[in-house]
Amino acid sequence: QQSRISCCEVLSVAETSKTLLSQNLLPAMDSDAKTMTFLQEVVDILLAYIVESFDRDTKVIDFHYPNELLQMNNWELQGEPASLDDILISCRATLKYAIKTAHPRYFNQLSTGLDMVGLAADWLTSTANTNMFTYEVAPVFVLLEYVTLKKMREIIGWPDGRGDGIFSPGGAISNMYAMLLARFKMFPEVKEKGMSSVPRLVAFTSEHSHFSIKKGAAALGIGTESVICIKDVLFVLLQGFVPFFVSATAGTTVYGAFDPLIAISDICKKYNIWMHVDGAWGGSLLMSRRHRWKLDGVERANSVTWNPHKMMSVPLQCSALLVREEGLMQNCNQMHACYLFQQDKHYDLSYDTGDKALQCGRHVDIFKLWLMWRAKGTIGFEAQIDKCLELSEYLYNKIKDREGYEMVFDGKPQHTNVCFWYLPPGIRHMEDKEERKKHLHKVAPVIKARMMEYGTTMVSYQPQGDKVNFFRMVISNPAATFQDIDFLIEEIERLGLDL
Amino acid sequence: QQSRISCCEVLSVAETSKTLLSQNLLPAMDSDAKTMTFLQEVVDILLAYIVESFDRDTKVIDFHYPNELLQMNNWELQGEPASLDDILISCRATLKYAIKTAHPRYFNQLSTGLDMVGLAADWLTSTANTNMFTYEVAPVFVLLEYVTLKKMREIIGWPDGRGDGIFSPGGAISNMYAMLLARFKMFPEVKEKGMSSVPRLVAFTSEHSHFSIKKGAAALGIGTESVICIKDVLFVLLQGFVPFFVSATAGTTVYGAFDPLIAISDICKKYNIWMHVDGAWGGSLLMSRRHRWKLDGVERANSVTWNPHKMMSVPLQCSALLVREEGLMQNCNQMHACYLFQQDKHYDLSYDTGDKALQCGRHVDIFKLWLMWRAKGTIGFEAQIDKCLELSEYLYNKIKDREGYEMVFDGKPQHTNVCFWYLPPGIRHMEDKEERKKHLHKVAPVIKARMMEYGTTMVSYQPQGDKVNFFRMVISNPAATFQDIDFLIEEIERLGLDL
Repeated sequence: QQSRISCCEVLSVAETSKTLLSQNLLPAMDSDAKTMTFLQEVVDILLAYIVESFDRDTKVIDFHYPNELLQMNNWELQGEPASLDDILISCRATLKYAIKTAHPRYFNQLSTGLDMVGLAADWLTSTANTNMFTYEVAPVFVLLEYVTLKKMREIIGWPDGRGDGIFSPGGAISNMYAMLLARFKMFPEVKEKGMSSVPRLVAFTSEHSHFSIKKGAAALGIGTESVICIKDVLFVLLQGFVPFFVSATAGTTVYGAFDPLIAISDICKKYNIWMHVDGAWGGSLLMSRRHRWKLDGVERANSVTWNPHKMMSVPLQCSALLVREEGLMQNCNQMHACYLFQQDKHYDLSYDTGDKALQCGRHVDIFKLWLMWRAKGTIGFEAQIDKCLELSEYLYNKIKDREGYEMVFDGKPQHTNVCFWYLPPGIRHMEDKEERKKHLHKVAPVIKARMMEYGTTMVSYQPQGDKVNFFRMVISNPAATFQDIDFLIEEIERLGLDL
Repeated sequence: QQSRISCCEVLSVAETSKTLLSQNLLPAMDSDAKTMTFLQEVVDILLAYIVESFDRDTKVIDFHYPNELLQMNNWELQGEPASLDDILISCRATLKYAIKTAHPRYFNQLSTGLDMVGLAADWLTSTANTNMFTYEVAPVFVLLEYVTLKKMREIIGWPDGRGDGIFSPGGAISNMYAMLLARFKMFPEVKEKGMSSVPRLVAFTSEHSHFSIKKGAAALGIGTESVICIKDVLFVLLQGFVPFFVSATAGTTVYGAFDPLIAISDICKKYNIWMHVDGAWGGSLLMSRRHRWKLDGVERANSVTWNPHKMMSVPLQCSALLVREEGLMQNCNQMHACYLFQQDKHYDLSYDTGDKALQCGRHVDIFKLWLMWRAKGTIGFEAQIDKCLELSEYLYNKIKDREGYEMVFDGKPQHTNVCFWYLPPGIRHMEDKEERKKHLHKVAPVIKARMMEYGTTMVSYQPQGDKVNFFRMVISNPAATFQDIDFLIEEIERLGLDL
C-alpha cells in the first residue's frame, strides 16, 4: 500500500508540471488554483527580469544574429499542444534574448525605460482585455481618455481644454489623421468623391520632419512629391497648387530641433492653411515650466501629435492626436456602422468615440498614461523630463570640447538629442578630408555593433544629408544617471580606440 | 522607551503603505523589494479579478451612466502625486466598473473571452516594452512574427507559405493596407504623384462588408462613392472607371456570411483586379478541418485580413494582413528613414520590417498569438473554434421554431452569428404589420439596456437595411457552454416578457 500512495503522489506532481496543459486552466472546471499557480509562475519570471533589467551589471542585450537566434530555440509552431512547463521555458527564452529596454544604459530609441506604475497599468489593461470603440464595452477607459485628452488640451493652451482628440497607434498614424482632417476641413466632398474632386494639394513640412508626413501623403493619394520644404509656400502658390497642410515639427527625430511655431502660425493664418504640430517627440516638453517655451505658439495649431510613450516613458504604445475643432474628427471619419453605434442606446452616445478613427477596434492605450499621471502628478512628469534634459546638457558640455569629438550641429541641443562624431585617434589627424570622411563614416556602425556584441549599452547612429554616420544620443530613460553618461563616453572610446 | 519603539513601528507601517510614492520604486536606490511588493499587490488584484470574471454568479458589468461614473470616483488628474495605496485603489475601482470580457455570458462583440496563456504573454510583452520596427530592438518578436506569418500563409494555401505580411492595429487598418497595396500594384506612380496621376478608380465589396472598406477609400482619396456593390463590375467598366480592388468578405460582421471566393476570384482574374479577402472575422475558420471549406478559393486572393483576436480569442489587438506577393509592401510604404533603417548594420536587414507599414513604431502583437499557438497547438485552436460553431448551431436549432422567435435570415448560420427577433407575447399576434414592426424595433434595445442594468449577460443588436432592430448573437468565447446558451434565451424572455 505504501508504494501505491507514492505512485499517486508522483502522478500528482507530474500533473502540476510537465503534463499540465493550457486546457487545464480557466475556463476548465476546478482550475482556479492551477490558473493562479501558472500565472504566478509567469509573474515570478517577469519580476526577476525587471529587477535584473535595472542592474547595471546585466547586459542590455544578449545579441545573436537572426539565423543563430532562429536555431537557438525551437520557435516553430506545432499541431500538438506543449505543456505549461514548456510555455514557461518559452517565456524565459524570449526574455533571455530580448532587449532590456528598462536598462539605465539603453539609449537606442526615443522610447526607453520602464515605468513600474505604467507597467502595472498595462498588466491591468491586458486583463480587462477590451476595446475602446464604445462606452458600452469600455466605460472606465473611455472616461479616462476623455479626462486625459482634456487635460492635455489645457496644457497646450486651448481655452478650458476644449477641442477633440484620440489616442492612436503611434505618431505616424496621428500625423496621418491630422492630414486627413486638414484635407476634409478644406474639401469635405473628398470623403465621398475622392481626390478627383479637389484641386492639386500640397503639404509643407520642416526640412528634418518625420518620414511619416511623406508616408501619410502617399497613403492619402496626395503623393510624396506634394510634400514640400516649409520655406517655399509662396513659390507653390504661384504655381496654382492649393496648400492645405503645414506640419511643423516640435522636436525633430535626429536633431531634436523645434520649428518656430509662432512664425509658422502667422503664415498659416495668412494663407488659411491647417497648422499641425508634430510634437511626437517634443510635445512632452509642454509639461516642463523650464522648457515649454520651445513650443510657444503651439496653442495656435489646429492639431498636435504628442506621444507620451516617448519622453514621458509611458509603455508603448501611447500616442495622442489633439484637435482644436470639435466634431471634425467624427464628421471626417464616421461611417455610422449600425452594429456598433446604435442610435437608440440607453446612454449618452457622445462617449462612443469609435467612429472618430479609421480603426474599428482600438486598443486601450489610455490607462497606463492616466495611472502614471496620477502616481507622479504633473510635477512628477516635469521632474523626470527636466532631469533627462539636464543629463543631455551634461553630455553636451562634456564632449563639446573634448579631444576626439565633433558636434554635428552648432549650439546647445534644444531637446535631449546630442549628435556627435567620435574620431578614433588614428583618423583624428588625417590630412585628406575626403579620406577622413570615408573612414569616419564607418566608425559609428562598428562601435555600435561592438556595443551590441558586448551588450554594454546601445545608442543610435545615422548619416543625414551630406553628413557621414554620427551618433544620435537621446535620453528619455528616467533610470539614467550622470555616471551612465560618463560610462557611455568611456565605452565609445574603449570600443573605438583601434578604428 | 516602549512608546518610542511603537512610534517607529507606526512610521514604518506608514512608509510601506500610505506614504510610499511611485518615485520610491525602481529605478530608485534600494527599491527592489518595494517594487516587487507593489507589483505583486497589483497582480493579486488582477488574479482575484480573473477568477471572479469566470464565475457565473458575478455580474458581467456593474453598469453606470457616464455622468454617474464620472462622479463615482475622483478620476481627475492632479499636479501632485498620489500614494501607491491610492494607485491600488484606482486599480480596484477601474476593474469594478469594467466589463468582465472573460465572463462566460459576455457575447457582445466578435472579440470575447480571456485566454490565460494569451494573458500571460501580454504581461510579458508589456514587460519587454519594445517596438517592432527593427530586429535590433525586438529580435525575438521579429522572428516570431516571421515564423507565425509564414505558418498562417501555409494555412491559407500559398506554396511553402511564401509571401509577405504584417501585424497591424486592427482589421480596419489591415483592410486599408490591402487597398493601398492594390492601388500601388496597378499604379506605382501614385506614391509620388498622388491620385491626380491615375484614372478614376473603383473598388468593389460585398453588400454587407465591413465599414472599414469605405473608411479606407475615404482616407486614400478614392472616395466612398467609388466603393461599389460587387455585382456591378461590368457596369462600371462600361463607364470608363478602372476597377482596382475587390474586397470579398469571409464572415460578415452581422450575418457571418461568406462570399463565394472562387467565383469572385474568377472575375478578378478576368479583369485583372486585386482580390482581397476580409477574413477579420471568418479567417480563423481556416484552422478548422470541418469549416474551412467556407473559405475555399482564399488561396487565390492577393491579400487576406485575418484577426486572431476575434475567433481565436487572442487578447486585443492581434490582426494580420497576409500578402501573396513578396516585396510589394516594402516598395509601397518605404521611406528609408536613415535613423532607423541604416543600410550598414551588422545583421540581415530583411528582418527590419518597420518600413513595410504606415506606422513607424509598432506595438508587439505577436507574442500572445505565438505563445497561445504553442500552448494549444493547431488542434487546440481547431477544437475551440469547432466548439463555438457547435454552440451557435445549438442556439439556432433551439430557437428557429420556438414560439416568439423569428430568424433574420434563412438557413443555418455559416459562422457563429445567429440573428433573430424576439417577439414578446404582447406583440406576437398584432395584426397591423407596420404597428408590429414599430413595436418590435424597440424590443431589443430595451432588453439590452435591462441586461446591462442587471449585469447578467450582454449581446449585441442592430437594425440592418429595412430590418428593424434584431439580436446578433455571436460566440467566440471559449468559456461559454450549452447551459449559457439556455440561460441567454431564458434571460431574453424574462427581460422581454412585459414589452
